[in-house]
Amino acid sequence: MAQKPAIPKGTRDFSQLEMARRNYIFSTIREVFALYGFAQIETPAMELMSTLMGKYGEEGDKLLFRIQNSGEKAAEAPEKGLRYDLTVPFARYVVQHRDTIQFPFKRFQIQPVWRADRPQKGRYREFYQCDVDVVGTNSLLAEVELIQIVEEVYRRLGIRVSLHINNRKVLAGIAEVIGAPDKMIDITVAIDKLDKIGVDKVNEELRERGLSEQAVTALQPILNLSGDNRDKLAQLRTILAGSEVGLKGVEELETIFNHLSFVNCNLPIDLDLCLARGLNYYTGAIFEVKALDVQMGSITGGGRYDNLTGIFGLPDVSGVGISFGADRIYDVLTELNLYPEDLQSTTQLLFACFGEDELRFAMQSATELRRKGMRVEVYPEATKMKRQMAYADAKHIPYVAIIGSNELAERKVMLKNMQTGEQCLTGIEDLKI
Amino acid sequence: MAQKPAIPKGTRDFSQLEMARRNYIFSTIREVFALYGFAQIETPAMELMSTLMGKYGEEGDKLLFRIQNSGEKAAEAPEKGLRYDLTVPFARYVVQHRDTIQFPFKRFQIQPVWRADRPQKGRYREFYQCDVDVVGTNSLLAEVELIQIVEEVYRRLGIRVSLHINNRKVLAGIAEVIGAPDKMIDITVAIDKLDKIGVDKVNEELRERGLSEQAVTALQPILNLSGDNRDKLAQLRTILAGSEVGLKGVEELETIFNHLSFVNCNLPIDLDLCLARGLNYYTGAIFEVKALDVQMGSITGGGRYDNLTGIFGLPDVSGVGISFGADRIYDVLTELNLYPEDLQSTTQLLFACFGEDELRFAMQSATELRRKGMRVEVYPEATKMKRQMAYADAKHIPYVAIIGSNELAERKVMLKNMQTGEQCLTGIEDLKI
Repeated sequence: MAQKPAIPKGTRDFSQLEMARRNYIFSTIREVFALYGFAQIETPAMELMSTLMGKYGEEGDKLLFRIQNSGEKAAEAPEKGLRYDLTVPFARYVVQHRDTIQFPFKRFQIQPVWRADRPQKGRYREFYQCDVDVVGTNSLLAEVELIQIVEEVYRRLGIRVSLHINNRKVLAGIAEVIGAPDKMIDITVAIDKLDKIGVDKVNEELRERGLSEQAVTALQPILNLSGDNRDKLAQLRTILAGSEVGLKGVEELETIFNHLSFVNCNLPIDLDLCLARGLNYYTGAIFEVKALDVQMGSITGGGRYDNLTGIFGLPDVSGVGISFGADRIYDVLTELNLYPEDLQSTTQLLFACFGEDELRFAMQSATELRRKGMRVEVYPEATKMKRQMAYADAKHIPYVAIIGSNELAERKVMLKNMQTGEQCLTGIEDLKI
Repeated sequence: MAQKPAIPKGTRDFSQLEMARRNYIFSTIREVFALYGFAQIETPAMELMSTLMGKYGEEGDKLLFRIQNSGEKAAEAPEKGLRYDLTVPFARYVVQHRDTIQFPFKRFQIQPVWRADRPQKGRYREFYQCDVDVVGTNSLLAEVELIQIVEEVYRRLGIRVSLHINNRKVLAGIAEVIGAPDKMIDITVAIDKLDKIGVDKVNEELRERGLSEQAVTALQPILNLSGDNRDKLAQLRTILAGSEVGLKGVEELETIFNHLSFVNCNLPIDLDLCLARGLNYYTGAIFEVKALDVQMGSITGGGRYDNLTGIFGLPDVSGVGISFGADRIYDVLTELNLYPEDLQSTTQLLFACFGEDELRFAMQSATELRRKGMRVEVYPEATKMKRQMAYADAKHIPYVAIIGSNELAERKVMLKNMQTGEQCLTGIEDLKI
């Protein structure tokens, strides 16, 4: 036989079990989004290259998949590319449809994205993103709702998590008060290593990154913040007294914490000044969620952005959003064995028959049961018992209704519980499983 | 402001309402599939060009979108392309995973496909296919179940349809008995025009297509079949007496009709000898479904194929499948105004507030209601009444819970029914909508 066919590297087929698990994750997330009034949109897989280019930095541009159609000569620059994330298409969508969108616009989007990354374990060239955003309001209630959504999604999935929160304005304030306003990112990157390398090495790195001795000294109170989130915020308020933007950041964090306590949010939340994702576009809150019982990177993250749509010519639209990492959540649930058992099979009952007349009776019975909402299969051939049972086993079907000539004569089935092996003769109208 | 951004021609954004409608179609179909034990798989958007090329004819090859990554020089032939349908990737999947698949393999797949067709009304470069197949059995029960699925899906959607059925073996038999075994497709194409151009012009076309006078004469009984499906099958049995393959086709059709009557299928079914789709791969039954109350092409179609996986080196795997045309079903439901009313908004209640304390109370109340499963939004800013009401109107939210200072003092809300305008003061724990 010819060589087995294959798929492009970095891509995946999803089997029925994998799909059942993925659908479980997505439908859990979708149900929670719906409780908060978010509604779904979809955008095309292809965007114009002019929409995509220059939005992900020089490295990102290189990772775009370009699309050619046969009308185009190979030498021409393709005018279309596959979407790299859901954020840029969303910004494009908001600007393109701004006249018909109702703001604040609460949308979610669950679609694949493509990146020409070098494939490796846990990194794919096609993977799903699951983004939820509110745009068109500065209200911090939006941040609060997103945190409530995080709490509820992971409560439903049974994954214990903690949420790390930071605020870009606080980071800017720190850089300002220590006299190094242009070094915000350097400072954040260095203090991110505090737990790993200790305060002395962090200070060393700060000097290497061009901070003056005076700035390093001024930064020390930040490295020594102690207590719970509120204690830290109180200390920050003192440290950042000279920075308007810094104080604004502290106030935003205080407001969010206050609201969360009003709504009885039980999610463990850490004020984490080292959290530095997306500093080139986030302007306020920054979030990251980690699973507590398994070693894995961030499984959800996001933040507040004040100028997402500016790149497409619509300035001053503030928004806040988070993205659930479906592949990592999948891995966490697998590792912790948290999937509901009944995902293995959706079929509740298989009819197994040993003749054409029996098959006909099975088809009639199956039709009757399906009308009552039962998920039923009929093994389509009157083949050997062993083969039909093996089918039920492999598909984890919990009950088999056997129809031989005796059962047919009585218009009944021998109902077998595949787990216990128990059997009983029963009529279709009385069949309870 | 800059020019509005755009998307590639032939592609579409789907708004929240469009997504709600599409999700309604897909979830209806999915629920019916589940009743019959079909489970979902997904394959990557990209396939190797070697998987795709040569599978759709010369014309199809030209309509493939090719994918380039930055590592590839523009002049190199891209090794990957976007999938053109779900059938070839499914065949590739079955062969690649044959060691772990349980046969008969009942799978469905709902994913977009891409074709570099010239975009025009109703024809897109990205559209969803929704395929359901059973492979690994010759049993005609598979055909019967697919027809039952068609009946149930359209019953649930409220679309009156009729199913046209033909059998490729019957067509081959006809060509054989009139002495023109190589003219099967010519004959079918010509007699397809019988209703439109009449029997004389059909005969003329048959002669033009190279049929002898004798063959045209021999074909006349076929053009004159009369009565219901069973009458026609009886006449065919006589006409095809000299063709083994033809009689096999008649027998297959009879078996399917018999089974359908045993399971009380009420779908209008027409034996239609002109139905000629997919003659280059179908080997047995051929189906097509049309809506009765609207002018539209086929909205579902499919058939039996005996060698789908042969192209990938795995011969002798018989299967049968159908494909639901989501875009056309969408158009039929729109034209006949058959969507459920509650698709317009998923949010059941909006809190509208006029101060920060009121907002806080609203957040607490919303949290409480969501815990009971209610889909609730809080307008995130204490802005003008008019604006908040306009938001509820635009989003078709049926109830608004207004919180002013009086309501806050009583820890109650003024619940407004947006349709009738009725208002009543109510506590959150007593709130019923």
